Amino acid sequence: MLHLTQRKANINDVKTIIELLLEDDLGKTREHLDLSEDSAYLKAFHLIDQDPNQYLMVIENSDEIVATCHLTIMPSLTFTGATRMQIEAVRTKEKYRGQKIGQWMMDAAVDYAKSRGASIIQLTTNKSRPRAKNFYDHNGFENSHEGMKRYLK
Amino acid sequence: MLHLTQRKANINDVKTIIELLLEDDLGKTREHLDLSEDSAYLKAFHLIDQDPNQYLMVIENSDEIVATCHLTIMPSLTFTGATRMQIEAVRTKEKYRGQKIGQWMMDAAVDYAKSRGASIIQLTTNKSRPRAKNFYDHNGFENSHEGMKRYLK
Repeated sequence: MLHLTQRKANINDVKTIIELLLEDDLGKTREHLDLSEDSAYLKAFHLIDQDPNQYLMVIENSDEIVATCHLTIMPSLTFTGATRMQIEAVRTKEKYRGQKIGQWMMDAAVDYAKSRGASIIQLTTNKSRPRAKNFYDHNGFENSHEGMKRYLK
Repeated sequence: MLHLTQRKANINDVKTIIELLLEDDLGKTREHLDLSEDSAYLKAFHLIDQDPNQYLMVIENSDEIVATCHLTIMPSLTFTGATRMQIEAVRTKEKYRGQKIGQWMMDAAVDYAKSRGASIIQLTTNKSRPRAKNFYDHNGFENSHEGMKRYLK
């Protein structure tokens, strides 16, 4: 029986979050576990942690982190001055998959969006992840846009 | 002959920016020109203006605003602690289209991304805008993701 709670990540969680990113088929090609003092991960964590519009969420089962996502609040002029929330870096720990933890986390993310006055939630999902897309379809997301990325040298 | 410059928008530009949003086929179904004191547009402008990770860009030809886009800097853990820049609300004034102003603005946005240390630029484009998608293809964006939106009540 799972007992799930969510909270804002702290610096002691960074290693565990990177491990979750590394479990992923795409993530394992991009990430590594170097957390030396000047690591880009720790610098990025501090930027996220200090920004009131960033919420790096971890989901715990008892005291174990089992899932994570990164939420960004974005004020905008469009849609009559709507606040948007963007969801990135959604991951569930491999051995905990298939237990609806992703659904629990999505519901927690929606609650967070509402608490921040957001009226639009947006995300992109890699076209190589059809099951993820089905999950978002099921959660009321419209597949109305192309998601485009450009990598700078 | 165009003489284009870019700068951060100020509060006196908000009406002109809304007019640009209203010229758009999708935008005209979403926006209106109510800029009374307590307008959601002005509240949103102040949130954008005060946030160092938001840059609402206007492009001027001499002293006339001819295009706009909204840039958001997002620190992230993924891609080894990469900083991302998101582009939203890209619009060129109708009577100035076809003069490569969009290209000039994209180049200015890329310069801004580099000045902020971003290594990934991302955006979504509505599937009803094939010409916009072609423009982003041409500018080195990979169409690797589905862009999904959920509207909260």
